[in-house]
Parts: sequence; C-alpha cells; structure tokens
Amino acid sequence: MQYVNILLFANFTALDAFGPAEVFARLKDQYSIRYFSVSGGPIVSSIGAMIETNSIDKLDHPDILLIPGGLGTRELVKDNSFLYVLRKIAEASTKVLCVCTGSALLAKTGLLDLKKATSNKLAWSWAVAQGENVNWIRKARWVVDGKYYTSSGVTAGIDMALAFVSDEIGHEAAKKISAGLEYVWNEDKTIDPFA
Amino acid sequence: MQYVNILLFANFTALDAFGPAEVFARLKDQYSIRYFSVSGGPIVSSIGAMIETNSIDKLDHPDILLIPGGLGTRELVKDNSFLYVLRKIAEASTKVLCVCTGSALLAKTGLLDLKKATSNKLAWSWAVAQGENVNWIRKARWVVDGKYYTSSGVTAGIDMALAFVSDEIGHEAAKKISAGLEYVWNEDKTIDPFA
Repeated sequence: MQYVNILLFANFTALDAFGPAEVFARLKDQYSIRYFSVSGGPIVSSIGAMIETNSIDKLDHPDILLIPGGLGTRELVKDNSFLYVLRKIAEASTKVLCVCTGSALLAKTGLLDLKKATSNKLAWSWAVAQGENVNWIRKARWVVDGKYYTSSGVTAGIDMALAFVSDEIGHEAAKKISAGLEYVWNEDKTIDPFA
Repeated sequence: MQYVNILLFANFTALDAFGPAEVFARLKDQYSIRYFSVSGGPIVSSIGAMIETNSIDKLDHPDILLIPGGLGTRELVKDNSFLYVLRKIAEASTKVLCVCTGSALLAKTGLLDLKKATSNKLAWSWAVAQGENVNWIRKARWVVDGKYYTSSGVTAGIDMALAFVSDEIGHEAAKKISAGLEYVWNEDKTIDPFA
C-alpha cells in the first residue's frame, strides 16, 4: 500500500487534483489517498467546494506526492515558506506528480532544474519563467524524468495518472481503469493537440 | 446568473460531480456552483475527500440540478425519503443533469418515464432496472430529452456539460472551455466507445 498525498492550496483547480485521484481511487488495495495543505483545515478550490485537509506536518509516509495547479499558484510562487515546505516534501517523496501549473510551483523550488518537464499550454510563458534551468518540453501531454511526472493542463493529469499506473502496476490495470471511467485515454504522451 | 446545484451523497463518484463543475466554474458570470445533500454537512466521496454541503432545505433557486452517480446510489434507490426529496427538487429545477448512475436515481423517482436517457455502461443492467418505463439508449455518450440531460459513465459527464454549455450559451464558449481544460471533447453524443 502506498499513500497518494495530495497537496491542496486556496484556488487550486479541482479537476487537476480530483481527476488523478479518481484514477488512484480505483486501486484501493494499492493506493490510499490523503489530502494536505500547509496549515490543514478547509481549502476552497476553483469549483467552490470546501475540502477538508490535514496539516502537512502530519505527512508521515512521503510516497506519491500530487501537486495540482490553478490560479492559486500565482501567489504561491512568491511565498518562500510554502516553497521551502514543498521542496522538503517533494525531495522526501518517492514519486512526484504535477498537473498543469503545479509544475511551475515545483520548478520554483529548483527541484526540476536540468530535468525535462511540461506544464499548462495557456499559461506556458508564465509557467516556464518559474524555472529557467528546467528543460521545458512544450509539445507533450505529459513528461517523465526520473521520479518526476509533469502534465499539461487539467485533464492531461488524468492521462498522466493512467500512465503512472501503467508504469507502476501494468498497462492492463490502467486500461481497465480508463474503461471504468469511460475515459478516452490519450495514451501517447507525444501527441498534444493543445501545444 | 444561474445556480448549478450539485446534489451529493455518501460515496458519490467525485469525478462525476467535479468534472462538470470545473466546466461551469469557467463561466463565473453565468453560473454559480453550490453543493447540497439531504441533511447538509460533510460528505465523503469515492476519492475520500470530505466536501462541505448545505442542507437541501436551503435550495432556494432550483435552476440547474446536477446529480452524480457512484456506489452510494445502490443504497439510495431503496431510500424512499431520499427519492421523494430528489423528485421534488428535480421537478422544480429548470434543467436536470445526471452523470453516470445518477440517472438510475432519477429514473427511480419516475421522472424519466417515457423519456430517453442513458447511464453507465459497466453498471448498465442494474441502472436500467431502476426505470422500466424509461426509453434507455445504450449507445450514447449522452442523451437529451426536454430538460433532462443524462450521460454515460464518469468522464462522459464532462462531454455532456460542454454540450449543455454549447446548447445554452454557444458552441464557441464550450470549445473555449474544453481548450482551457486541455480536454479532447468527445463532441458527438452518438459515438460511444464503451457501449
């Protein structure tokens, strides 16, 4: 059993987090999902829903870290205490998955320096400016470099989560989940209609 | 401004509700999203996240009602007091959108009788048994009949929500949202790879 630790913050894009979460939720024997934020307590997302979170201090099993994007990232890239905490837990985590502008946050910590990564295409120029030493790949549905998985905008996170399951558990398991979600999985990470 | 009233219950499928919600959230001038449950308070979804809801008694603007599906529907089809409340608010609402097995719940109230509707393909035989007088359409990504929109499983709800926006506001608005979500919109409701 591995923990999927989802890091939330004010004004995160709900679908960035909950699309991949729904993928992991289909493998209850393998993954357990938990929600964190810097201070804990309720966090309000792009869709207005208020989600209960644990404080990041209580993150005792740094297995898989999932970082969504969203408008809230625009403030957080200027918040050094947040970036310090993010860097610490991302370093400790076995795998790190960033969706959309979540990769801009991680880039700002320096952890993506000299690594390949991608991000949201509508916010591209802002995102890449957060990590000048990152090897940004524009035309990609998602990118893998070592323990870091980064995806393009919002629903690309579902494709990436399915690819992660395929890498970790097997292609058949991922196909079964995509069928269960009645999701037309964009399986080829190099095909990016939004680049 | 119209309210999108999302009816939650224990063990709803998160992506059924939050996929369409993310679509509506992109039109803040047109739609305001609210979360309800029969008794109000926190509701736990398929992905473990605890969402805060208002009590259904406080639903004062019955504009657009969104009903997700999920494992929780298996109990709710036997819960007559829930079905009574659901029927009342669905009748009062201007439009009703059901995702996945949400249509099985609505079918059980009788409101889909003699109407065309669809549902989740993996739970098909159970879903259709909840409404013997419904004109169930198996091969459909989503179905529209009067004020009722019903979709196939989980991510088909995103396609349906985009189609709803296209019907109500215009195709260009819907295309813009799908691009913003970097979502490959399955625009043709008659193409259903999971039927």
